[in-house]
Amino acid sequence: MIPERIRHLLSQVADGSVAIDTALERLSLDPIESLPFASIDHHRTLRQGFPEVIFGAGKSPEQVAEIAQRIAARGDGLLVTRVAPEAADLLGERLPGVELNSLARTAYLAPSVPPSPGKGTVLIITAGTSDLPVAEEAAVTAAAMGNCVARLTDVGVAGIHRLLSRHAELSQAAVLIVVAGMDGALPSVVGGLVRAPVIAVPTSVGYGASFQGLAALLTMLNSCAAGVTVVNIDNGFGAAVAASRINHS
Amino acid sequence: MIPERIRHLLSQVADGSVAIDTALERLSLDPIESLPFASIDHHRTLRQGFPEVIFGAGKSPEQVAEIAQRIAARGDGLLVTRVAPEAADLLGERLPGVELNSLARTAYLAPSVPPSPGKGTVLIITAGTSDLPVAEEAAVTAAAMGNCVARLTDVGVAGIHRLLSRHAELSQAAVLIVVAGMDGALPSVVGGLVRAPVIAVPTSVGYGASFQGLAALLTMLNSCAAGVTVVNIDNGFGAAVAASRINHS
Amino acid sequence: MIPERIRHLLSQVADGSVAIDTALERLSLDPIESLPFASIDHHRTLRQGFPEVIFGAGKSPEQVAEIAQRIAARGDGLLVTRVAPEAADLLGERLPGVELNSLARTAYLAPSVPPSPGKGTVLIITAGTSDLPVAEEAAVTAAAMGNCVARLTDVGVAGIHRLLSRHAELSQAAVLIVVAGMDGALPSVVGGLVRAPVIAVPTSVGYGASFQGLAALLTMLNSCAAGVTVVNIDNGFGAAVAASRINHS
Amino acid sequence: MIPERIRHLLSQVADGSVAIDTALERLSLDPIESLPFASIDHHRTLRQGFPEVIFGAGKSPEQVAEIAQRIAARGDGLLVTRVAPEAADLLGERLPGVELNSLARTAYLAPSVPPSPGKGTVLIITAGTSDLPVAEEAAVTAAAMGNCVARLTDVGVAGIHRLLSRHAELSQAAVLIVVAGMDGALPSVVGGLVRAPVIAVPTSVGYGASFQGLAALLTMLNSCAAGVTVVNIDNGFGAAVAASRINHS
Amino acid sequence: MIPERIRHLLSQVADGSVAIDTALERLSLDPIESLPFASIDHHRTLRQGFPEVIFGAGKSPEQVAEIAQRIAARGDGLLVTRVAPEAADLLGERLPGVELNSLARTAYLAPSVPPSPGKGTVLIITAGTSDLPVAEEAAVTAAAMGNCVARLTDVGVAGIHRLLSRHAELSQAAVLIVVAGMDGALPSVVGGLVRAPVIAVPTSVGYGASFQGLAALLTMLNSCAAGVTVVNIDNGFGAAVAASRINHS
Amino acid sequence: MIPERIRHLLSQVADGSVAIDTALERLSLDPIESLPFASIDHHRTLRQGFPEVIFGAGKSPEQVAEIAQRIAARGDGLLVTRVAPEAADLLGERLPGVELNSLARTAYLAPSVPPSPGKGTVLIITAGTSDLPVAEEAAVTAAAMGNCVARLTDVGVAGIHRLLSRHAELSQAAVLIVVAGMDGALPSVVGGLVRAPVIAVPTSVGYGASFQGLAALLTMLNSCAAGVTVVNIDNGFGAAVAASRINHS
Amino acid sequence: MIPERIRHLLSQVADGSVAIDTALERLSLDPIESLPFASIDHHRTLRQGFPEVIFGAGKSPEQVAEIAQRIAARGDGLLVTRVAPEAADLLGERLPGVELNSLARTAYLAPSVPPSPGKGTVLIITAGTSDLPVAEEAAVTAAAMGNCVARLTDVGVAGIHRLLSRHAELSQAAVLIVVAGMDGALPSVVGGLVRAPVIAVPTSVGYGASFQGLAALLTMLNSCAAGVTVVNIDNGFGAAVAASRINHS
Amino acid sequence: MIPERIRHLLSQVADGSVAIDTALERLSLDPIESLPFASIDHHRTLRQGFPEVIFGAGKSPEQVAEIAQRIAARGDGLLVTRVAPEAADLLGERLPGVELNSLARTAYLAPSVPPSPGKGTVLIITAGTSDLPVAEEAAVTAAAMGNCVARLTDVGVAGIHRLLSRHAELSQAAVLIVVAGMDGALPSVVGGLVRAPVIAVPTSVGYGASFQGLAALLTMLNSCAAGVTVVNIDNGFGAAVAASRINHS
Repeated sequence: MIPERIRHLLSQVADGSVAIDTALERLSLDPIESLPFASIDHHRTLRQGFPEVIFGAGKSPEQVAEIAQRIAARGDGLLVTRVAPEAADLLGERLPGVELNSLARTAYLAPSVPPSPGKGTVLIITAGTSDLPVAEEAAVTAAAMGNCVARLTDVGVAGIHRLLSRHAELSQAAVLIVVAGMDGALPSVVGGLVRAPVIAVPTSVGYGASFQGLAALLTMLNSCAAGVTVVNIDNGFGAAVAASRINHS
Repeated sequence: MIPERIRHLLSQVADGSVAIDTALERLSLDPIESLPFASIDHHRTLRQGFPEVIFGAGKSPEQVAEIAQRIAARGDGLLVTRVAPEAADLLGERLPGVELNSLARTAYLAPSVPPSPGKGTVLIITAGTSDLPVAEEAAVTAAAMGNCVARLTDVGVAGIHRLLSRHAELSQAAVLIVVAGMDGALPSVVGGLVRAPVIAVPTSVGYGASFQGLAALLTMLNSCAAGVTVVNIDNGFGAAVAASRINHS
Repeated sequence: MIPERIRHLLSQVADGSVAIDTALERLSLDPIESLPFASIDHHRTLRQGFPEVIFGAGKSPEQVAEIAQRIAARGDGLLVTRVAPEAADLLGERLPGVELNSLARTAYLAPSVPPSPGKGTVLIITAGTSDLPVAEEAAVTAAAMGNCVARLTDVGVAGIHRLLSRHAELSQAAVLIVVAGMDGALPSVVGGLVRAPVIAVPTSVGYGASFQGLAALLTMLNSCAAGVTVVNIDNGFGAAVAASRINHS
Repeated sequence: MIPERIRHLLSQVADGSVAIDTALERLSLDPIESLPFASIDHHRTLRQGFPEVIFGAGKSPEQVAEIAQRIAARGDGLLVTRVAPEAADLLGERLPGVELNSLARTAYLAPSVPPSPGKGTVLIITAGTSDLPVAEEAAVTAAAMGNCVARLTDVGVAGIHRLLSRHAELSQAAVLIVVAGMDGALPSVVGGLVRAPVIAVPTSVGYGASFQGLAALLTMLNSCAAGVTVVNIDNGFGAAVAASRINHS
Repeated sequence: MIPERIRHLLSQVADGSVAIDTALERLSLDPIESLPFASIDHHRTLRQGFPEVIFGAGKSPEQVAEIAQRIAARGDGLLVTRVAPEAADLLGERLPGVELNSLARTAYLAPSVPPSPGKGTVLIITAGTSDLPVAEEAAVTAAAMGNCVARLTDVGVAGIHRLLSRHAELSQAAVLIVVAGMDGALPSVVGGLVRAPVIAVPTSVGYGASFQGLAALLTMLNSCAAGVTVVNIDNGFGAAVAASRINHS
Repeated sequence: MIPERIRHLLSQVADGSVAIDTALERLSLDPIESLPFASIDHHRTLRQGFPEVIFGAGKSPEQVAEIAQRIAARGDGLLVTRVAPEAADLLGERLPGVELNSLARTAYLAPSVPPSPGKGTVLIITAGTSDLPVAEEAAVTAAAMGNCVARLTDVGVAGIHRLLSRHAELSQAAVLIVVAGMDGALPSVVGGLVRAPVIAVPTSVGYGASFQGLAALLTMLNSCAAGVTVVNIDNGFGAAVAASRINHS
Repeated sequence: MIPERIRHLLSQVADGSVAIDTALERLSLDPIESLPFASIDHHRTLRQGFPEVIFGAGKSPEQVAEIAQRIAARGDGLLVTRVAPEAADLLGERLPGVELNSLARTAYLAPSVPPSPGKGTVLIITAGTSDLPVAEEAAVTAAAMGNCVARLTDVGVAGIHRLLSRHAELSQAAVLIVVAGMDGALPSVVGGLVRAPVIAVPTSVGYGASFQGLAALLTMLNSCAAGVTVVNIDNGFGAAVAASRINHS
Repeated sequence: MIPERIRHLLSQVADGSVAIDTALERLSLDPIESLPFASIDHHRTLRQGFPEVIFGAGKSPEQVAEIAQRIAARGDGLLVTRVAPEAADLLGERLPGVELNSLARTAYLAPSVPPSPGKGTVLIITAGTSDLPVAEEAAVTAAAMGNCVARLTDVGVAGIHRLLSRHAELSQAAVLIVVAGMDGALPSVVGGLVRAPVIAVPTSVGYGASFQGLAALLTMLNSCAAGVTVVNIDNGFGAAVAASRINHS
C-alpha cells in the first residue's frame, strides 16, 4: 500500500468520513509488494491476525533471505518454517536478533509490538520422542502468534496411565494440539477426555506401513472422539495457526 | 451412576467436604449403562459438554430405537445421525416429539433443559447444491449443541464473486464450517478471507477421480490458507462438534 | 483316504511296525475327496487341529450345501462362514441340528466328539456396536474350535474409562481379540494394558476416509503397543483361528 | 528421409503432379535417423509443428549430447528438458550458442528460421514461489515454439485479492497455464474468471499429504470450473506444448 | 442483476460515459438469483461464453427441475448432465421442447438465440463401444455450445489400422476429444498424428485393475505424445467445454 | 473387405504375380465393417489367429446381439465374454446353436471350420471354488481357440499336498493358467515346479484387504518364481488368449 | 516409583494386608521417569513382561544414549532397535558389555537377572537372503525376552521342496515367525503345514510393484491359511514381541 | 545331491530298473547346498531349464561373491542381476571370464556346456531411450538362457510410423518383449499387430504421475490387445525368463 494512500485513508478516519471498520477492510484488501519470485502480503496481519510466514521448503537460501529482509524491514516480526541449515545460517548473518531453532527448523524475529495475547493456554502433546520436531514447530509458531504454550511429552496410548496421570493439565488447556505418528491413536483418547478443541497432527514417524504418516492421518480423520480436527502430515505450523485462531476468537 | 452415590456426593459438596470441581470430575469418570450390544455413557454431557450421540450406520433399527429410548428416558435430549429411513420411522413411533430431518438423515429430541449457548454464530458454507445433506447434518448437530447457526449456500470458487459479495457474513462468524466436494477448493479461499477458525468438510460429491471425496480431502489437508483444519469425508456431524467445542471455549 | 489304507496303517500301528507319530503324519498328508468344484480336505483336523471350514462368499447356495453335507457325513462337525441368507435356509433344511447365527453369518454343526479344550479364555472386545457382526463371527468360530469365549462390548477409546474399569477381565484372558473400525485405536490401548497375546481385527465400519476399513487396518499395523498382530479387515474368523492356535499351543 | 526421395517429391510438386498437401503428408510420415540408443524423428516439425524435444531424465550426459548434436546439425533448433547439471555442462561445451536455464532445467538452441508465431499471449500463473521451476520450464518451452509469454507469480488463492487485482491480464490472455502445488486450487478460480482455455499443472510442492503432487493433481481433475484440462505433475513442458497447439490452431 | 441496473448501465454505454468492455465486465461480476438450495449464476454466459449447466448427480429430481425452470425462464437455453431417469421424466413434463438423450444422460433446451459458432470441427473419437455414453455427453455439450461435432467410433489401438485409415478426418479437426477406457492408449497415438489440440477423457470401462478408470487416467497423464491434456474420468462434459473454449478462442 | 477385391487378390496369388505372404499381409490390414456404435474387424483371424471377440460388459443386449449376428453371418464362429443374463437370453433366441455358459458368462458359436489345434494341453489351475467363474471363462476361451484344455481345481497353497500330489499333470502341460484370489500365492509355487510358461490370473475373491483382487495381483507381479507373467484381475479371457498364442507359436 | 512407596507396599504384602496380585497391579500402573524429550516407563516389565525398548529411528544418537543409560542404570537390561551406526558407536562407548549387531541394527545389554524362559522354540523362517536383517532383528528381540530361537533361511516357495524337507523343524516349533518380501507367499504355505501360531512379517524387499513391502503385506493379510496374523512391514521386533507373548502365555 | 546317490541312481537307470523320467524327477526334487545366509539350488537347471540366478539387490558384495563362486564351481554358468558397482568389481576380481554389463547391471559367466537353443528369436522392443537398462537386462538374460535376441529401439507410439515401418521384424519374432515407461501404450499396439506371445514390461521412467511405473503397469494390465501378459515394473529379467520358457516349450 502506498504510504500516501494510507495517510489519506487515516485522515478520513480521523475526520469521521470513513468508519474504522471500513478503513480496516480496505487496508486488508490492499495489494502487495512484488519481487520477481514472490508477492509479499504485508497486510496479512490486518486481515488474518498474523504476519506472512515464509515456507522455507523449495526456496533457495537466497530467496528466503531476501523475502525475510523485506518483511523484517516493516518491523512486523518474522517467522520462517522448514528452514534448511544453509538458509538458517544466512538468516543468522543478515538478521540480528533472529532466533534459530534447529529442532523445529524455524527462524523467528520478534515484532516491535507484541501480538495480542490469546485467551488461554495451548497445550502441545506428543505421543513419542520422535514426534518432537513437529511439536516444536507448533510451539514456536503458537508462541510467535501470542499464545501461551505448554507441553506434555511422550505420553502415547500404549502406556495409557502416563496420560491419565496428567488429567489436570489436559482439562485446563484452552486448545490442545496432539502430535502422533505410528498408529496416531492419541488424539482419540485425548478427545474423549476434554471439552476443549483438539487439533490432531499426524507425523511421518513409523515403520513401513505407516506410509510416511498416512496411517496416522487416516486414524485421526476417523477418530471415534467426536470433534477432533486434523491438519496435514508433519504440519505443526498449520496446527498452531488453527489453535491461535481459536485462542484469539 | 447409582442415584445413592450421586446423593452422597452432592451432600459432600453441600457441606463443603468435597469441592465442586472434584465432584464434577468424579461424575464425569463414572461408568455406564450396559445393553447386550452397547455401553451407554450417560455422563458424557458432564465430561464433554454434549450428550452421547448415536451413530446410526451399521446398527439395526431396533438397536437404534432401544439405545435412543434409554437416553431419552434421562431427559438429556437425543441426537441420532445417519438414520436409515426404517430407523427414522421407528423413532417417530416411539419417541413423541422427535424431529426427523430426511435431508440431514438425523433424528433430534430437545432436552428438558436447553444446552448452554455458544458465544457466536457458526456459519455453514457449501460449495454446491449436492453438498447440502452433509451441511444439513452439521447444521442440525450444531443447533442441538446450543449454537446459533447461519448458512451460505452454493458459493463455490468457480464463481468467486458469489462468495466475495458475502464478505460481511463471513467476517462476522465466530466459526466457519466449509463443506465442499469435487475440487474442495473453497476452504482455501475462505481461510484467506477471515480470522476466525475454519473447519473444512470434504464431501463425496464428484466425478470419477474424486474417489468418493478423497480428492477434496487431500485438497483441504494441503490448503495454502494456514490454520484450516479438516474432518473426515461427509462428516458434517464431526465438524459441528468441533465448531461447538470452539464456540463454547 | 481309502478306508483300506487306513485299516492297514492302523494294523501296522497296532503291531508296532509303525510309530504313532509316523502314522499321524501320513494321515495328515493324505489326499482328499474331490467334487467337480471343490477338493475337500477331510484330514485337516489331524494336520491343523480344526476341520475344514467353508468360506461361503462367492459360492452358490447349492455348492455350499453339497460341500457341507459331505463334511457333515463324516461326523467331524461343520463351520460355514459368510453364509448368505439363501444358503443358510438351504443348510437349515438339509442339516438337522445346524445352528444358524444371522448376526455372525455362520452355520455350525457340533462334531460327534467335542474338540480339545483350549487352555484359557479368549476375550473378544469390540469398540462399538457396529463391530458386533465381526466379533460374533470370531466368537462362533472360537467356540467351535473348543475355546471358552468371553465378550466385552462397546468400550472404544473415546470413553477410555469404560475400558479401564474392566481391568480384571482384561488381565485374566489367555488371548484377546480386539475388534474395531473407524480409528482402530483400541488394540493399542489394550496391548499396553495386558501381557497376553493381542490379535487386532479392523472392521469396515466408518465414515468416508475409513476406506472400508483401510484406516483401521493401518492403525493396527502401526500400533505403538508392541506385539499386537493383525488379521484382514472384517476377518473375525481368521482372528479366532489364530487365537485358537495360541490357546491350544 | 533420403534426399533423393525428397528431391523427387519436390519435383512432382513443382510440376503439379502431386498436390502440396499430399507432399506434406508424405514427408510427415517418413522414417527417421537411428542411433544405437535412439530413433530421431527429424520431421516431427512437419507433422506436429514443433521439433523433436529431448527428455533429459534417465539419459546419460553423453547420450543427451549425441542426440542433441544430430538434431542441431539440421538447423531445426533444439530443446532439451530435465537437463542434469552434468549434461548441461556438456551441451554448453559442444553446442555454441545454446541457452542454459538452470531454474527451468532446460537447454535451448534457436532454429535458423524462427517458428511461426502464435495468435496471442500464453499467460503462465504460479500459486507460489516454490512452483517457479515448473512454470519456467513451461515458459522456455512455449517461447521456443513461437509463443509470446507473460507471467503472473505468487498469486495463490489464500490471498485471493492478489489474483483479482490482475483481472485485465487474465482476460487478455489467449491461453492460461496455471501452475500450483499444495491444494492446487488456483486453476478452479482462474477457470471461473476467464473464457480462454486453461491448462492446469500440478506441482510436487507441499507437506506430507500432498503425496508429491497427487493432491494437487486430483484437485485439478475435479475442478468445479468447467473446461479446465490437466497435465502430469511438474510437467511444465507438456502444458506449454498443449498451449502452443491451441495458440497455433 | 436487477433489470433497472442493467437498463442504467446500457444507457451509460449508449451515451458513451461507460465503455463497452467496462460494461461487459460489470455485468459478468454481478451476483445471482438464490434458491434455498442453489445460487444460480444467470450471467455466466457473459463471463464465460456458456450458460450455467446443471450437474444432475446428487440433486433430487425436484431440485433439478426447479433450477432448470429458472434458467429456462430467461431464454438462455439449458443443459443438464448426469440426469437420472426420474429427473429426465420430470424435465420432459415441465419443459416443452427439451431434448432428452438417454445414452448421454443429458437434457437440452435450445436458447432463443443460438450461441456463437466455433471456428472448426470438434472431432470426438472413441476407443470402444462401451465408451459411447461419455462420448455422447461430450457431443451433446459441444453442440449445445455452438460447435460443429464429428465422430469416429471404436478405433482403439489394438487394431491400429482402423485409426490410420481415417487420417484425413483426424488432420482436419480443429480440436480432438479422445475417449478411452481400459488401457487409455488411444490419445497417445492420436496426439502423435495431429497438430491440433487433443483432450483425453479416461472412462471407467474395463476389467478389475482398471480401477474404475484410474488406469486410463494415469496413462493419459503420462502420454508420450506431448501436449495432450486430460480431464476427469468419464467427464465428457468437461472435455467438451474445454474444446469449446479452444474452438472459440 | 469387398469380395471382389478378395477374388482379385486370390487370382493374383493363383497366377503367381502376388506371393502368398504378401496376400496374407494385405488381407490382415484391410478395414472393417462399421455399425453406428462399433467397427467390426472381420479379418482379425487372419492377422491374429483368433476372431474378434465381443466384450459384453457396458454394451446393451441389443448392441451385443447385433454385433454378434454380423460376425456369425461370416461363419467365423463367435465368442462373447461377460454376457449379462439378458444378453445371453437374446443371443439364445437369435443364434441357433449358440452355447451359453452361465458360470463363465460366455456365449460361444463354433465356426464352420475348426481353428487350428494347439501343440499341447492348456492346464487351468484354481486355488479355490470361488475362483471357478474366472477359470471357466479361460477354459471356454482356450477351447474356442483350438486348444486342448485340462483342469485342476481347489488346490490352494494352504494345503500344499493337494498340489504336489498332481505333479504329473503339472509337468505335462504345455502352458499353465493359474487362477487365484485372496493371497494369490499359488502361481509362485506352480512356477517353481514346472518348466513350461505360467500365466497368473488374480481374482477379486477375498476379504476386505484383498481390495477386489489388488492383493492377489501384486503378489503375482512380485512372484519369486521367475518367468511368471500376469494378466488383469478376473481376466480369464486374456489369460486364455495369451496361452493360445503360446500354444500355437 | 519412589522407593519408599515400594517399601511400604511390600511391607503390606508381607503382613497380608495387601494381596500379591493387588500389589503387582499397583506397581504396574505407576508413573515414570521424565526426561525433557522422553517419559521412561521403568515398570513396563511388571506390566507387560518385557522392559521398555528404545525405537532408535528418528532419535538423535545423544537422545538414544541418554535414555539407554537411564534404563541400564536400573539393571533391567536394554534393547535398542533401528540403531543408526553413529548411535551404535556411542552406545558401545558408554555401555560396557553392550552387544551390537549391525545386521539386525540392534544394541542389547543383558539384564542382571535373566528373563523367564518361554515354553518352546521360536522358529524364524526367511524366504530369501535379502530378508535377513528383519529376521535377525526378530531373533535378537526374541532371545532378549527369554525365548529359545531357531532359524530356517532362504526357503522361499519358488523351490517348495527346500521347505518341505524341513518338516520336522516346522512341526516342533512353539511359534513360527515367517519373514518374506516380494510375493510374501511363504506364510500361507507354512500356515497350512503346522498347528502352531504363525506370525507373518512382510519385508520391503522386491522389484517395483512390491511398493516397499505393500505387496507382501497384502498377501499375508489375505493368507488362505487360516489363523496367520501379520505385523507391520520390516517389523521383526514386533513379531518377536508377539511371539514372546504367545510363548510365555 | 551327494555324488554317491547320483551314481547309484544312474546305475539303476543303466540297468533299466529306474526309468529315465523317474530319475530326472528325483534329481530335480533333491535338496540343496546351504550357506549361513542362503540355500543354493544347484539342480534348478534340471527342474526349470535355467540355473539359479542371483538377485543382487539387498545382498552385500561379499554375499553376492560367495554365492556366485559356489555356483560357478559347478560349471553351470552364472547370472547375477541388479549388481551394484561394488559387487561387480568383486565379481570381476574373483571370477575370470565373467562378463560385466553396466547398463544392464548384470554379471554373466558362460556355462561349460551351452544351454539348449530356443526355437525362434526373442525380439526386445523399447519405447524410449530411457527404457534401455531394463531392456538390456532382458537381453542379457534371454541370451544367457540360449535364446537368439534381436532389438528394436525407441519406437514409442507417439510416432507410430517408426513402429509400423518395422512390420517384418515384428511378425517374424517368436516372442516379443515390449519395454515401456510413461504411458506404457506400446504393448497394446504391438499386441494388435502380431500373432506371437507378447510380454509387457513397465518401466519406472516418467514424470510425477507415472508413480515410478505404476501408470505403465496399469496400462499394460488393461491392454485392449488380448493376450498381452505383464511382469513387474523394471523386471527385464522376469520377462526374459518367461520368454525363454515360451521359446523352449
